[in-house]
Amino acid sequence: MRIEKLVQIMRENEFDGALISPGANLYYLTGLHLHESGERVTLLVLNSDGEYQLLAPSLYENTIRDFPVTFWRDGENPYEKLAWILGELELSSGRILVENTMRSDWLIHVIKLGNRNFEFHPLNLLMRALRMRKDPAEIRLMERAAKVADRVFEETLNLDLLGMRERELALKIELLIRELSDGLSFEPIVASGENGANPHHLPGNRRLRKGDFVIMDYGAKVQGYCSDITRTIALGRPNEKLLEIYEVVKDAQEKAYRAVKSGIKAKEVDATARETITGKGYGEYFTHRTGHGLGLDVHEEPFIGPDGEVTLGDGMTFTIEPGVYVPGLGGVRIEDDVVVKEGRGKRLTRADRELVVL
Amino acid sequence: MRIEKLVQIMRENEFDGALISPGANLYYLTGLHLHESGERVTLLVLNSDGEYQLLAPSLYENTIRDFPVTFWRDGENPYEKLAWILGELELSSGRILVENTMRSDWLIHVIKLGNRNFEFHPLNLLMRALRMRKDPAEIRLMERAAKVADRVFEETLNLDLLGMRERELALKIELLIRELSDGLSFEPIVASGENGANPHHLPGNRRLRKGDFVIMDYGAKVQGYCSDITRTIALGRPNEKLLEIYEVVKDAQEKAYRAVKSGIKAKEVDATARETITGKGYGEYFTHRTGHGLGLDVHEEPFIGPDGEVTLGDGMTFTIEPGVYVPGLGGVRIEDDVVVKEGRGKRLTRADRELVVL
Repeated sequence: MRIEKLVQIMRENEFDGALISPGANLYYLTGLHLHESGERVTLLVLNSDGEYQLLAPSLYENTIRDFPVTFWRDGENPYEKLAWILGELELSSGRILVENTMRSDWLIHVIKLGNRNFEFHPLNLLMRALRMRKDPAEIRLMERAAKVADRVFEETLNLDLLGMRERELALKIELLIRELSDGLSFEPIVASGENGANPHHLPGNRRLRKGDFVIMDYGAKVQGYCSDITRTIALGRPNEKLLEIYEVVKDAQEKAYRAVKSGIKAKEVDATARETITGKGYGEYFTHRTGHGLGLDVHEEPFIGPDGEVTLGDGMTFTIEPGVYVPGLGGVRIEDDVVVKEGRGKRLTRADRELVVL
Repeated sequence: MRIEKLVQIMRENEFDGALISPGANLYYLTGLHLHESGERVTLLVLNSDGEYQLLAPSLYENTIRDFPVTFWRDGENPYEKLAWILGELELSSGRILVENTMRSDWLIHVIKLGNRNFEFHPLNLLMRALRMRKDPAEIRLMERAAKVADRVFEETLNLDLLGMRERELALKIELLIRELSDGLSFEPIVASGENGANPHHLPGNRRLRKGDFVIMDYGAKVQGYCSDITRTIALGRPNEKLLEIYEVVKDAQEKAYRAVKSGIKAKEVDATARETITGKGYGEYFTHRTGHGLGLDVHEEPFIGPDGEVTLGDGMTFTIEPGVYVPGLGGVRIEDDVVVKEGRGKRLTRADRELVVL
């Protein structure tokens, strides 16, 4: 089981325990698919002897089976039960891994339970090594998720986009994704016209009109595994400046893709994209990293940024998504999902990267 | 501004600073609506002199204006900038409030930055006092969100439910909510037949059939404020046992609602529902608290459970939602949103509570 792999590298790295709240890591390690948000304490506690116990609200009494679990009911203090579990697993001090996304209020209680004798470290320090390289079964699921993303892009080109609101298009993308997969990787982004200058724009009431560049960024999940694609299309006769930017971004994306190789660092891929864009004078408008790892999480290791020290290798999956964002004008981003296979990058998403003008 | 109210009660309670990551508290205090999830460090740092500075990724450069903010770019270490901000605000030790939902990996870095000299406390210790009592403008938004919930229930009764899959019904509910409001409070729950025995059931592929009791639990947001309603309906001739349970739950819900009064503790409302259900022999199947506060968060103070020590008062808004869940048979839950007004409870949701048999 994967939990034993974690225990092994915990020992190698002299960690004494781990606290793992619901999310992709817990699912990866145990197959348990539990609610990620919510204030009810839900925690897997693990020690370096490989002993573990789940603390979970009694709401799960009818669904969690064949797993060592302690339930607590509303009205009970979950931290009393957590203290008991920590005692059973002989965790009273030492170096403890903590799920990165765990709520801080839970950690604050653990600090007290440990009389400030614990030293905490983010769990992803170790998990990324486990999760970064996908096995063939995982890659097959990611290929399926990527195919859904491609298919959805094709479908959007058949829509009557002129006059449609950003949020209407986002909803249509969402429904297509849900029909073809297990659900969204994240809320789709649709950014049109000058809204394209904000890489994190939330789809709003703006209607798509002639002359717009429209950025669509979305992804699908298949059995928990994510895809993440961005395409930028033009409606009507494209603005000359944005046309020029499109070619710069496309070139940067292609060069970064070709730069992918086993043995180089993630930051070298970022540098390739960044130098291409900077060389054309748009460096200041490329305000984010070139990409991020992709798997059970839509953002995970390896991050493809200027600080990307991870050495790339077979089985790693990540996005390549340079973009240029000019306030008042708009933006262009082109994003593909890539797997390292036999030492080279291989695109998982394959939708057309030439500018589509509708 | 609300941030000054927080500073005032920070002083009264001898807190030295606060770290506030994106979410309902940040929105309530500043009006800033930032991404809640994501690994890029985004934090409002505040001291008890009322000085504050936001640390945000450069992605927000084009959207955050007229607010004291320090941006960091991908590739930079955000914690270096956070250290600088902590220095500027003279926060090097002392009692620090932390947004409850903040990611633990951020807190772990703050522990190090403070050389373990900080003592952390959950921010909600103070925020709940601020947010628990809604002002008239907030209540108006909650009334609007509740009306959407009522309206959606009426619409679901017009659907051709027999043979529909749980997830199809959940999607229809979602689209109705989105059409009528700013969006979902949470992913709708549809639990049919024996699935109703799991209060946290995720809508699946099971088709609704004659004899089913169907639990629908969903809510809408209006300008950030949530509603949350549950109704249980029957398809075809209802099972006798479930009919009996329905009347027990309806009675418990009504009695708990009538028990709401300024000056009593939240747990007294819970006790009323619990005693009613226990008196009919179903106590062991009522596995959760009677309700939860509702506002910008779908779960907030005051929690209406056996440990609910909050004293109820005008302007507080919460759900009343007893339920009975019998493994192998199914479940019933009836939930309304309630505001305390002139000393008594007043329902915000008003959809029919008599059993609807379709």
